[in-house]
Amino acid sequence: MKIIENPNKADWSDILQRPTQTVNDIENTVTQIFDDVKQNGDKAIAKYTERFDGVTLDTNLVSSDEIEFAKSQVSADLKDAITIAYKNIERFHAAQKTSKVEVETMVGVHCWQEKRAIEKIGLYIPGGTAPLFSTVLMLAIPAKIAGCREIVLCSPPNASGKIANEILFAADLCGVSKIIKVGGIQAIAGLTFGTENIPQVYKIFGPGNQFVTVAKQLATKYGVAIDMPAGPSELLVVADDSANPPFVASDLLSQAEHGADSQVILVSTSKTMIDDVLKAVDVQIEQLPRHDIAKKAIANSKLILVENDEIALDLINEYAPEHFIICSKNEDLFVNGIRNAGSVFIGNYTPESAGDYASGTNHTLPTNGFCKAYSGVNLDSFLKSITFQKITDKGLLDLGPIIEKMAAAEGLEAHKNAVTLRLNDLNKN
Amino acid sequence: MKIIENPNKADWSDILQRPTQTVNDIENTVTQIFDDVKQNGDKAIAKYTERFDGVTLDTNLVSSDEIEFAKSQVSADLKDAITIAYKNIERFHAAQKTSKVEVETMVGVHCWQEKRAIEKIGLYIPGGTAPLFSTVLMLAIPAKIAGCREIVLCSPPNASGKIANEILFAADLCGVSKIIKVGGIQAIAGLTFGTENIPQVYKIFGPGNQFVTVAKQLATKYGVAIDMPAGPSELLVVADDSANPPFVASDLLSQAEHGADSQVILVSTSKTMIDDVLKAVDVQIEQLPRHDIAKKAIANSKLILVENDEIALDLINEYAPEHFIICSKNEDLFVNGIRNAGSVFIGNYTPESAGDYASGTNHTLPTNGFCKAYSGVNLDSFLKSITFQKITDKGLLDLGPIIEKMAAAEGLEAHKNAVTLRLNDLNKN
Repeated sequence: MKIIENPNKADWSDILQRPTQTVNDIENTVTQIFDDVKQNGDKAIAKYTERFDGVTLDTNLVSSDEIEFAKSQVSADLKDAITIAYKNIERFHAAQKTSKVEVETMVGVHCWQEKRAIEKIGLYIPGGTAPLFSTVLMLAIPAKIAGCREIVLCSPPNASGKIANEILFAADLCGVSKIIKVGGIQAIAGLTFGTENIPQVYKIFGPGNQFVTVAKQLATKYGVAIDMPAGPSELLVVADDSANPPFVASDLLSQAEHGADSQVILVSTSKTMIDDVLKAVDVQIEQLPRHDIAKKAIANSKLILVENDEIALDLINEYAPEHFIICSKNEDLFVNGIRNAGSVFIGNYTPESAGDYASGTNHTLPTNGFCKAYSGVNLDSFLKSITFQKITDKGLLDLGPIIEKMAAAEGLEAHKNAVTLRLNDLNKN
Repeated sequence: MKIIENPNKADWSDILQRPTQTVNDIENTVTQIFDDVKQNGDKAIAKYTERFDGVTLDTNLVSSDEIEFAKSQVSADLKDAITIAYKNIERFHAAQKTSKVEVETMVGVHCWQEKRAIEKIGLYIPGGTAPLFSTVLMLAIPAKIAGCREIVLCSPPNASGKIANEILFAADLCGVSKIIKVGGIQAIAGLTFGTENIPQVYKIFGPGNQFVTVAKQLATKYGVAIDMPAGPSELLVVADDSANPPFVASDLLSQAEHGADSQVILVSTSKTMIDDVLKAVDVQIEQLPRHDIAKKAIANSKLILVENDEIALDLINEYAPEHFIICSKNEDLFVNGIRNAGSVFIGNYTPESAGDYASGTNHTLPTNGFCKAYSGVNLDSFLKSITFQKITDKGLLDLGPIIEKMAAAEGLEAHKNAVTLRLNDLNKN
């Protein structure tokens, strides 16, 4: 880990630079697979599943028998844990419901805003060694609360042609409509165009590797919305002497184990804290099964000493971390002053992994500084707001002349005429 | 206008097809200009302003003198109209504020969600013959209510090197921070990378031609968010015999005058209404200054006769119109049943131009079927939601074991360890 002491503000942007990703060479592959899936549907899907996942499937549809079997294989203990997490996530996201906004802006001019569910959504759940069933909860629970009619889950088959039992259990618990064994670029292409087995959807959610990320970007060109642009996961901790060095070290490491490109930063006004966290990291990292990955991420990470909390806050807002942990006596300054962050964890007993799994908040968050403009996934991610208006005779008599003047000034006479005709009619009576 | 009677559901998607736009040939130009502006800043900006707008500017910054002069040139009558529209838009968008969502999901597990403003935003206002000052109101008013700190407005200079007086008046009224005479691709590139004069922003809003649209898409690759993908404007009216044919015709024409590629559709259960609207269109169109444009749009438009209102509603939800006018005795069916629309106008005295200018709703809306997944611009477009959590000792003692089980099942031992360390510490005391 690199210790940086009291950097000049002019150097912040260099110090806080994320590793650049070059995706241009992937784009051609993604475009080719999209074209193929658009043309050839499930035949193309099967070809890429064979090529990339190394399995030939009779069908990529998950049957109800498979789901029932999977449910029987998950331990009661884990089922209980998932169910409690489910309830917390449901409670927090259900509380995000907003009511209809109704305003009579002028007498007889009734305007309102209502939210309606996105009807068809796709959830992408990566495969790999670890079954990320927690992401199923984070995406499918708010989708269900929002009222999405069709929730399609795609996840790549493993070498035996199966999706992990825990993922199937979680998907079933959340009321996912359809589960399909398909991963990578071909999954995103299938959700974008629709195939015989894969329904076309309006919005695609979920994490994935570089291929999936570029495929999601391409999907937007075809009019499909996506949850947010993705990048490697990241965590920033601000800690003063009130923090607990082993706890801070464990949080940094929990982020570092995600991948070699994960970003981990500690900001502190205390050189002692920085030194102590460094020592604790060295001790803890050896005991981790994924220590090879964590070591690579930790090697790129930064410990930044700053003069005071105000400077710390400025620097953190410039970085805009996905996950932000506050272990500081000056907690309120950071809670009230943070403008750019995905999710914030406060105090010594609030590890980031609480939000990853079970406290109730969502773990699908903007990385790469995107939280400067994007929210993490929340209930509204599954809804659109639509505005409505109804104007009475009286309302139009008052508002109409305003519209006429503005339309005329913009040179849009037909816009004006739509009002003039109605006003003439009303004035005639 | 093409009349289509009782089409088969299987043919809907062909009938409702929007004109395809090919943008691939523009992409190279956009990429080149982006690279140039990134490298050469305002020097490049000046070059493209000369090339595309045909003017050489001493500076592209609008001075306070220019603003004062512009304000003196706008008629008192138009100023009054704009001010009333301002108040209605402000009232409707201010009502969209949401309060902090706080939930104690389990005892001692406090989660909350708060919205914070996007700090730096860019507004793009097209130039051309008509000064679109109404778009300034639609974007800058909610930005101000949200609390955006820096609101940068870019609009191309006219042949005299000026921005229209009405635009400057509206921008000043709305408290825009900085106004810059720059348009097209180079404006979007400037807002994406920042130049000496143009601040770099986090999100770009506003309409524009194909070049601006492709430039906004490219901006997202550099991590800048955009309001929504854009396409030609469109309007769908559902009308039964309770509708007023000349009113309906005037609404169809107010959309048609936007551009030759505008989409205009009438859906009705009444052949008489379709015939009467067609006649009224023929009469009104001759009187419009922009009748050449309107005629082209009308030539591509469709009048669709359907058997009943339920079929009408299904078809409308499949099309997903940007603007949707309901003139029907069966109003509630459509209001309650519409799932995909940008903005809805109800009744004979609610012309679409009311929402374009002054009723209070926003006129920046998703076209091209994007309202299946996207909202129109609203207060939340200028905010991000951030989640926070704080867990007590007691809270972690209860929640911790759940997190440990889930993290272990996902093979993420460092995530588990961040909890285990804390639980050991708590159990020790």
